Amino acid sequence: MEFKISKEIFLKALQRIQGIVEKRNTMPILSNALLEVHNDLLYVTATDLEVGMKSSYPTKVIKEGKITVSAKKLYEIVKEMPDEEIHVATKENDWVEIVCGKARFNIVGLSSEEFPYFPKVKDESFIVFKNEILANMIEKTSYAICYDETKYNLNGVFIKAFEENDTNVLRMVATDGHRLSVAQEVIEGSISAELSKGVIFPKKGIFELKKMAEEESAEIMLGFMDNSAVIKKGNSVVVMRLIDGEFPDYTKVIPVNNERNVQISRDKFLHSLKRMAILSSEKFKGIKIDVNPEIIVISSSNPELGEAREEIEVQYEGNNISTRFNAKYLIDVLSVMADREVELKFKDELSPVIMKPLADNDFMAVIMPMRL
Amino acid sequence: MEFKISKEIFLKALQRIQGIVEKRNTMPILSNALLEVHNDLLYVTATDLEVGMKSSYPTKVIKEGKITVSAKKLYEIVKEMPDEEIHVATKENDWVEIVCGKARFNIVGLSSEEFPYFPKVKDESFIVFKNEILANMIEKTSYAICYDETKYNLNGVFIKAFEENDTNVLRMVATDGHRLSVAQEVIEGSISAELSKGVIFPKKGIFELKKMAEEESAEIMLGFMDNSAVIKKGNSVVVMRLIDGEFPDYTKVIPVNNERNVQISRDKFLHSLKRMAILSSEKFKGIKIDVNPEIIVISSSNPELGEAREEIEVQYEGNNISTRFNAKYLIDVLSVMADREVELKFKDELSPVIMKPLADNDFMAVIMPMRL
Repeated sequence: MEFKISKEIFLKALQRIQGIVEKRNTMPILSNALLEVHNDLLYVTATDLEVGMKSSYPTKVIKEGKITVSAKKLYEIVKEMPDEEIHVATKENDWVEIVCGKARFNIVGLSSEEFPYFPKVKDESFIVFKNEILANMIEKTSYAICYDETKYNLNGVFIKAFEENDTNVLRMVATDGHRLSVAQEVIEGSISAELSKGVIFPKKGIFELKKMAEEESAEIMLGFMDNSAVIKKGNSVVVMRLIDGEFPDYTKVIPVNNERNVQISRDKFLHSLKRMAILSSEKFKGIKIDVNPEIIVISSSNPELGEAREEIEVQYEGNNISTRFNAKYLIDVLSVMADREVELKFKDELSPVIMKPLADNDFMAVIMPMRL
Repeated sequence: MEFKISKEIFLKALQRIQGIVEKRNTMPILSNALLEVHNDLLYVTATDLEVGMKSSYPTKVIKEGKITVSAKKLYEIVKEMPDEEIHVATKENDWVEIVCGKARFNIVGLSSEEFPYFPKVKDESFIVFKNEILANMIEKTSYAICYDETKYNLNGVFIKAFEENDTNVLRMVATDGHRLSVAQEVIEGSISAELSKGVIFPKKGIFELKKMAEEESAEIMLGFMDNSAVIKKGNSVVVMRLIDGEFPDYTKVIPVNNERNVQISRDKFLHSLKRMAILSSEKFKGIKIDVNPEIIVISSSNPELGEAREEIEVQYEGNNISTRFNAKYLIDVLSVMADREVELKFKDELSPVIMKPLADNDFMAVIMPMRL
């Protein structure tokens, strides 16, 4: 194998896979990138067996072939190279020579035969999404993903599509058992059987999808095969194994009788929560919220540090409610909202609260109160 | 004690002392800031008993007095406050009330009586330095400070002044036993007895001095009292206890017979070293340098990763020299040089090398080779 490529393109190609390659050193081949050249293209593939990415880049192919090398070391080397053309060639015993300007590297490679098979993707039955829609929905749900690996079915984002009022809607849901986030958007095109049933995208895959959606503006294509999701964008294909489990029935978690509605300024609420959280304990971040007509009082206390309280004017007419929350959970929700006004929907002191933008029903979070 | 102060000024005041207060929790009072108000000024003092800082800021004094509170928590609280005037007042039992907008904090303070005494500084016998000179000299030496606490006399920068050719010169020296860095500049004004003998500024104090020298452009005044250095700038006074030990006779470390002079481009050398260091082992960063007439060859190898080599054209006429260095030591020196051309002065393969700007004799580093 032998090819020449511009430093800029090679660096970008290697940068994109740094999040995919396996960090733990359980199988050395998974920390390698597969480089293949044929048909004037360099194909760069990385996988950790859960999430894989294969992309193609224009290159001057001198001799077709393939090899694998450490994705991290190759990236470090290319990053430090001068801004000139880089010449890559395989040598005997899977050694790889990399020459740029007067710098010459010989690094240890591994045969491409040991590299995991990357599935062939057919060009059919893909749904096309606008970038912003996916990026926005992932932003609004991924903060609530559960990081406890024993709850494997919550370690990702549940994605489902359905028809409502003659339009197709895509919904994303994430929960860690203490809070739940739901975002949805109207989509164009038809709904595949997989999306109609609902699938769980793994945490790592969802963050790769978000990165792709945030790159340059373009469209993303989504398809499914063999318990995997296939994402295509520009010159890249990402295949991620879906989480094989049942997502809990989140509709049962969303309260339906929360009729004490409080309208509050997002900015004032967010900044007050950040202030009050300073005096909550490092571990629980518990703050107290007292809802009164026209006013809520946010307060916190910490036996070692002191206490803090702040009033915010709100629109509310009803009985007093006094409850406690983990300040971080409220801050997380407000941080992904751009809306000026937020609606809090309470039932009573021990029931979960709903948070949503006042003027938008496509995003909603449910947060459990803390036990007193 | 009671005063009002703008958020901006209070925040800046608290930010400046964050590097001074004690991080380890051995004496709680040392993690506190002393706030004192009188004569329309707020005085903020912090100390870890080695380095102390006292600064004054304009304020509206309502009631004179003093108190100490956690420097970190107070900074966090003020940082999150709205951009309004902040009202601070002491309450019973050393509680401190902080009010800004509708936010009200009551935090636990400690009596100012427990706070260490901050020495009274007399307004005499200070030497005036230009900011840039100090910042530049500290930059060029501090990277070589020894972090091994058992070598306490190397845990700082040695500063000495002397007369040379009818001008006064200030010199800074740092060494960790493997490398040595010397920077000097012509100064105006007279030389105090302390500087004439030479003093060792502690690591933490030297970095505080660098921060002050890098702030806004102005002058810095330096004086000495009771085994401490006193630094005055604008509204701030820093007092740091000097390291009580003998700095080794660094002049004996600087080789005098290194007559094989190699002239090399700083940029080419620096970037090549960064590339070659990628394949040196994580632990020793050893790279090989072969000096030949007109050319040097930099190379590295690592049994697990591979090998790398690069040639750089140089000006050199002499015998071949082959030696090994820790790449980081060479990179550190080149990183603090702005000069285009660098001179390496070798003696033989086992002797230390001198690195200096080609056209400047006011900066020099000496680096020990690695044993082969």
